[in-house]
Amino acid sequence: MTPEGPTERTVIHRHTERAAYDSQTVSDVLEAGLIAHVGIIHDGCPVVIPMVYAQVGDTLYLHGSVASRLMRALRTGIPACATVTVVDGLVLARSAFNMTMNYRSVVIQGTARLIESPDERAIVFRSVLDHLIPNHYDTVRPPSDSELAQTMLIGIPLTESSVKMRSGPPYDEPEDLGLPIWAGEIPLTLIASNPIPDPDLEEMIQVPASVANYKY
Amino acid sequence: MTPEGPTERTVIHRHTERAAYDSQTVSDVLEAGLIAHVGIIHDGCPVVIPMVYAQVGDTLYLHGSVASRLMRALRTGIPACATVTVVDGLVLARSAFNMTMNYRSVVIQGTARLIESPDERAIVFRSVLDHLIPNHYDTVRPPSDSELAQTMLIGIPLTESSVKMRSGPPYDEPEDLGLPIWAGEIPLTLIASNPIPDPDLEEMIQVPASVANYKY
Repeated sequence: MTPEGPTERTVIHRHTERAAYDSQTVSDVLEAGLIAHVGIIHDGCPVVIPMVYAQVGDTLYLHGSVASRLMRALRTGIPACATVTVVDGLVLARSAFNMTMNYRSVVIQGTARLIESPDERAIVFRSVLDHLIPNHYDTVRPPSDSELAQTMLIGIPLTESSVKMRSGPPYDEPEDLGLPIWAGEIPLTLIASNPIPDPDLEEMIQVPASVANYKY
Repeated sequence: MTPEGPTERTVIHRHTERAAYDSQTVSDVLEAGLIAHVGIIHDGCPVVIPMVYAQVGDTLYLHGSVASRLMRALRTGIPACATVTVVDGLVLARSAFNMTMNYRSVVIQGTARLIESPDERAIVFRSVLDHLIPNHYDTVRPPSDSELAQTMLIGIPLTESSVKMRSGPPYDEPEDLGLPIWAGEIPLTLIASNPIPDPDLEEMIQVPASVANYKY
């Protein structure tokens, strides 16, 4: 899928011990994330917008309205960058300087492409929803022709992707280890709480397994 | 602080009911977020990188190493975009088309500026750490002169900021309301779990109040 090494523009220069470029690690971070922050150049300036996404094979797919300015820009085949970050915790060192976070992030740089094939589009519609909540697509009303016409799908190849990750305890300077200062990690996790039924929901409609079993 | 209205490039055209431009709403989202996704143009292409940040007054501050390529680019005073997103939940409609998320995001577009004044830098060092974990800065060893020299601070004015937010139950087409399909919300919250002491921590060192009381 993606090459198992960096390109000139994806290579990570600092904290190289945190870098990865293999397709499995890229997929793992994309699977763990919920939204991508997508950057384009608009009128000579960078613009970064949060979007839902799905990975299918060697492509990251973005999903939006045909009326969206970002989507209309992407369909013209411009360079884009999609970054997905999962925050895993605060890393509290004995010094302010060594404070950091535990995280996993993937940065994807590539040229956007409009997805027009009905077959490819059908797979992506399902994948975007099932990325948000697995196995839910089959429980809902599928898109009508009019809704399909209102939805644009964009693909960005995963060829130029890099992952940066940090985990574990803080690093402190050797001379700080004896200081009477607390150090450690505070893990952070996105947690789903109980589903809230729509106020208009008819009482006899049961919660589907995709919702009942949902764990972020 | 920020103007209480949009500029040509920050105005939100779609779902205008989700838009806000007032400084209090911008501050609330920045306070609730943990990381900013910062976009710049590098070699003609957009690049988006996650970073820690702090808001002080009418400026968003970014904090990084003087060796970072992103920071070295920002210090030259280029256009930048910083986007902070808080995910609040999945919104499950009866139709695939009306699936969405509840979220709060702020998009800040502006020209980056290197922060050189020692007084401004001192405030920002404290603010970046206290944004991650309130009242923690005074418990740790402050930065040495050498560490200060290794740390670059960048400011982006909040003048051109826009917020987009969604909350509440799904919207469904009137003709879908009678379908036997579950609809509702799954709230998502970032939760801190118990602090993990550094393996090298001396046993008699107590957890400070900033860590014991931490709630994301």
